[in-house]
Amino acid sequence: MSESDERTVAVIGAGTIGLGWISLFLARGLRVRVNSRRPDAERIVRESLELHAPFLPPGSADPKGFDRRLEFEPEVERAVDGVDVVQENAPENAELKQELFARIGRAAPPQALLLSSTSTLSPDVMGERMADSSRLVVGHPFNPPHVVPLVEVVGGERTAPEAITRTVEFYRSVGKVPIVLRKPILAFAANRLQSALLQESIHLVREGVVTLEELDSVVTHSIGLRWASIGPFQAFHLGGGPGGLRQWLSTLGADLEQGWQLLGRPRMDEQTIASLTAQAEQAFGDSSYEELVRARDSRQTAVLRALAAVD
Amino acid sequence: MSESDERTVAVIGAGTIGLGWISLFLARGLRVRVNSRRPDAERIVRESLELHAPFLPPGSADPKGFDRRLEFEPEVERAVDGVDVVQENAPENAELKQELFARIGRAAPPQALLLSSTSTLSPDVMGERMADSSRLVVGHPFNPPHVVPLVEVVGGERTAPEAITRTVEFYRSVGKVPIVLRKPILAFAANRLQSALLQESIHLVREGVVTLEELDSVVTHSIGLRWASIGPFQAFHLGGGPGGLRQWLSTLGADLEQGWQLLGRPRMDEQTIASLTAQAEQAFGDSSYEELVRARDSRQTAVLRALAAVD
Repeated sequence: MSESDERTVAVIGAGTIGLGWISLFLARGLRVRVNSRRPDAERIVRESLELHAPFLPPGSADPKGFDRRLEFEPEVERAVDGVDVVQENAPENAELKQELFARIGRAAPPQALLLSSTSTLSPDVMGERMADSSRLVVGHPFNPPHVVPLVEVVGGERTAPEAITRTVEFYRSVGKVPIVLRKPILAFAANRLQSALLQESIHLVREGVVTLEELDSVVTHSIGLRWASIGPFQAFHLGGGPGGLRQWLSTLGADLEQGWQLLGRPRMDEQTIASLTAQAEQAFGDSSYEELVRARDSRQTAVLRALAAVD
Repeated sequence: MSESDERTVAVIGAGTIGLGWISLFLARGLRVRVNSRRPDAERIVRESLELHAPFLPPGSADPKGFDRRLEFEPEVERAVDGVDVVQENAPENAELKQELFARIGRAAPPQALLLSSTSTLSPDVMGERMADSSRLVVGHPFNPPHVVPLVEVVGGERTAPEAITRTVEFYRSVGKVPIVLRKPILAFAANRLQSALLQESIHLVREGVVTLEELDSVVTHSIGLRWASIGPFQAFHLGGGPGGLRQWLSTLGADLEQGWQLLGRPRMDEQTIASLTAQAEQAFGDSSYEELVRARDSRQTAVLRALAAVD
């Protein structure tokens, strides 16, 4: 990535997601203006830049040059003044985001893209108090945004198609993999898929078929490996042999629905929560949060690099 | 792996799963006796050994030495005579496997481990016609067995605990990751998890939220990458920040059940099957089955090697 691409992004909020975006945008050569009311925002950002440095994508700019392109501005209006893009990461609260986007809409340049990392709210809801919310688009990243490539791009009734196109171009330009949802759906796509797997995972642990740690091992050593490499539909397409998904569905199509009837519907009662918590603390409690995050991101980064080398 | 580990495994059946086991066992230095009634079994096995060679696990024996340790025996009784282990991969039919294991039980040495790759049947059912089925254990691999590490190990009421222990030791000795299911459950663990994700995947495509190809991209670029690196419980443990799964469940515990209520329950009607098939053929139809399998296994092998290098 060239250092000369000096578009400016205002990153609103310096929580886990905001910090990931800051690292990614700096790594991709952009100017970043951080908007946070945390008095220690500068320290937090600089610490996270150091933590993230080993996990930045290939071709990233030298972290030594980040400082020149990094600014802090606690006032929202001044933070979005003159920027090209806003990436908002405020807490998941509709009223708060409505108020925030009303202010952003008045202060940002009229052509600036206004992007929200929300995982649940629609652009129409968030833009309710804006005079014109046609350039407000959801860009929902997967955590952490500087490592995991997916961004779910979601427009609303009032979003201009051209804003979606520009959003996709913007995310591609910083190395992300944007996928545009073609219809609104609660919780978007990736988190729904994750939720479906979690439901059966909790069922299997709750029934005592495997422990929590064994469940994790089942996933990483089978379907995780598979789905990092190819998606579920391609996997089943190959499961059908040379006849492909057509063959696979014609053999198993009717059985699929029956199988789904038998999947677990676990209750999240106190006993279940207590048992899962105890098992998680036994499995992971010996390592600190920072150690586990570093291990996760070392592994994720290694997988991404290996796959990029294959392609 | 030393070439001197000359235990003998009888591999019953030379379909996709059997062929994968043959490659793995030879790569790990074992003698392999292939039992198949296919007249072209020798040709098929030798072709698959060539196809699998680039994807064998690190530390595998030199494929040049495979031939010396490979035999073919179309008669079941002679195939299992004097072996240490039997790995059965016959079609998924209870009566057929009962008949087969009755014959295997009479002809194999009394201390031989009798393992079945079944994905649905219990040892008690498969061993119904054996005088003693205490050493009959399910060792259900994930396809392809020479690449994907997981084996689900499942005993029945009549299985001796010692047989389970020996099964785990055997699979570990050939580099697999065996996970013992602590309770019987229909379809075992990994395929249930896979089925849960497939259900929501089909729902999202059927509703037109994303296309089949976009769904695959969502998965590989987010949860696939994540679950190749860490399991779902560790992922949510980190999602809770330093407070871990306890924190995450206390914030979201009740909402989880509500979210599960909203997951899709797609009908596998003719229209759905036709649409999925058409989309799969559009997405993958330009490549042959062999090309896609090679691409899948190149990617899976690269991921495994990268993760092994991190650890």
